[in-house]
Amino acid sequence: MIHNTHLTVRYAETDRMGITHHANYLVWYEQARTEFTRMLGTSYGQIEEKGLLSPLLEIETKYLLPCTYEDEITVECRLVKATAAQMEFCYRVFKKGEEKPINTGRSRHAWVDKDTFRPASLKKRAPELFAALVAAVEPEE
Amino acid sequence: MIHNTHLTVRYAETDRMGITHHANYLVWYEQARTEFTRMLGTSYGQIEEKGLLSPLLEIETKYLLPCTYEDEITVECRLVKATAAQMEFCYRVFKKGEEKPINTGRSRHAWVDKDTFRPASLKKRAPELFAALVAAVEPEE
Amino acid sequence: MIHNTHLTVRYAETDRMGITHHANYLVWYEQARTEFTRMLGTSYGQIEEKGLLSPLLEIETKYLLPCTYEDEITVECRLVKATAAQMEFCYRVFKKGEEKPINTGRSRHAWVDKDTFRPASLKKRAPELFAALVAAVEPEE
Amino acid sequence: MIHNTHLTVRYAETDRMGITHHANYLVWYEQARTEFTRMLGTSYGQIEEKGLLSPLLEIETKYLLPCTYEDEITVECRLVKATAAQMEFCYRVFKKGEEKPINTGRSRHAWVDKDTFRPASLKKRAPELFAALVAAVEPEE
Repeated sequence: MIHNTHLTVRYAETDRMGITHHANYLVWYEQARTEFTRMLGTSYGQIEEKGLLSPLLEIETKYLLPCTYEDEITVECRLVKATAAQMEFCYRVFKKGEEKPINTGRSRHAWVDKDTFRPASLKKRAPELFAALVAAVEPEE
Repeated sequence: MIHNTHLTVRYAETDRMGITHHANYLVWYEQARTEFTRMLGTSYGQIEEKGLLSPLLEIETKYLLPCTYEDEITVECRLVKATAAQMEFCYRVFKKGEEKPINTGRSRHAWVDKDTFRPASLKKRAPELFAALVAAVEPEE
Repeated sequence: MIHNTHLTVRYAETDRMGITHHANYLVWYEQARTEFTRMLGTSYGQIEEKGLLSPLLEIETKYLLPCTYEDEITVECRLVKATAAQMEFCYRVFKKGEEKPINTGRSRHAWVDKDTFRPASLKKRAPELFAALVAAVEPEE
Repeated sequence: MIHNTHLTVRYAETDRMGITHHANYLVWYEQARTEFTRMLGTSYGQIEEKGLLSPLLEIETKYLLPCTYEDEITVECRLVKATAAQMEFCYRVFKKGEEKPINTGRSRHAWVDKDTFRPASLKKRAPELFAALVAAVEPEE
């Protein structure tokens, strides 16, 4: 499954270069994962209540074109890998009405226990979510 | 006691107005309280380990002059009230080499239990820190 | 006029206290002013293009109850004063389905020239926006 | 040349997972580049005054171990490529007293004209800075 998250660039997200500060794309990716997870019928908050966390292992992101305050943005989020231990997402960020992405990225996440921060098996700890994620995996574009 | 915290404005802290975004002054106040607490021989991290949190109740801040990227900033932090239940701090922010503050502020904080978020008595839960805070109170300027 | 802005708390907006970090309320107020301005038929971006900026002079905010990740939030924004030189807004922040605000605040803003940062008369520089703002002023609650 | 930037994790930089939110490493890399540039006898602010900007083209970052509030952090910044059109930096982030990095990363930056955002030749526009950067390039580890 692919989910599109819509947001409007905040003034606080710009910097004195006049454009969106690059670190905010990572926050937008995170908001996209939040909505992606809700689309699966659960929420990341509920997953945390089961004692699981999903910290970042790796992010890469390419900045192709700038955007700025009040621009209407779509973050396309695609799950490209889901195992018992890890997830990988790909992202494409678009300005409203434009076909060429302004940013593309990829992130890799672990499943760990909330208290120990040690690897946890999503398959064992939350089998329904695991099945939903596996079913939602899309091929990479 | 009065503590001076020194920092340099980060690029990410500016916005497209060309100056420091106003929300960052609250983060600088917090960094100043961190250093103030360490000056008393403890740390806010250690206080949290005792099961206490100190959430904000109220902040007010006046923006008098702008500052921007790479400006060297001093945050003067003064504890003006300390009871078993609350603390109040005053702040004056200066640009290096200038006498007139660019920002002034005040914050009020509660002591609460980490698990219940209910009011907690610092006097009972951490009597040494309470005594150190009371001794550190300065008159307002 | 009163405008209600709806948002969902982002993971990045929480801190290790488990709740929304207090500085983010200022960013939410700003997002509410953005939407308020659009409701008047213009946008803050367009105002900047006319050579005007509206920097903060003063903010005060009271934190009444916490909120956290994925909470659905409404920021009620009310313009309470509009002169040629300044604006004042009041805010009340609500969690979905609750009647008691979790946060209240007030901000005061100047109108300045983009290049000189000196006071500018909105009445002279953008008479239509000035008239729209004056007409939108609400009594304080 | 290699530059080490020292900082202490801010409370606002943590999230409700209890650790530093991953987007902040990008802000720390930026602070490290600021100090790296000053070490060369100039400053990024001065470069901007010459009409040049250095926006991000690409970042990748690996999160190896967590860190949290009040941890003392060193960001090792190494320039690994400098041409008339681009720069590349590598980073390793350490917790005080530990030998194993908690994070590693790499960023690639363009030189563009401040007004047009079109590619600019650093060699032509700021030959002294260009020479200083070329001389500062280190082999990758």
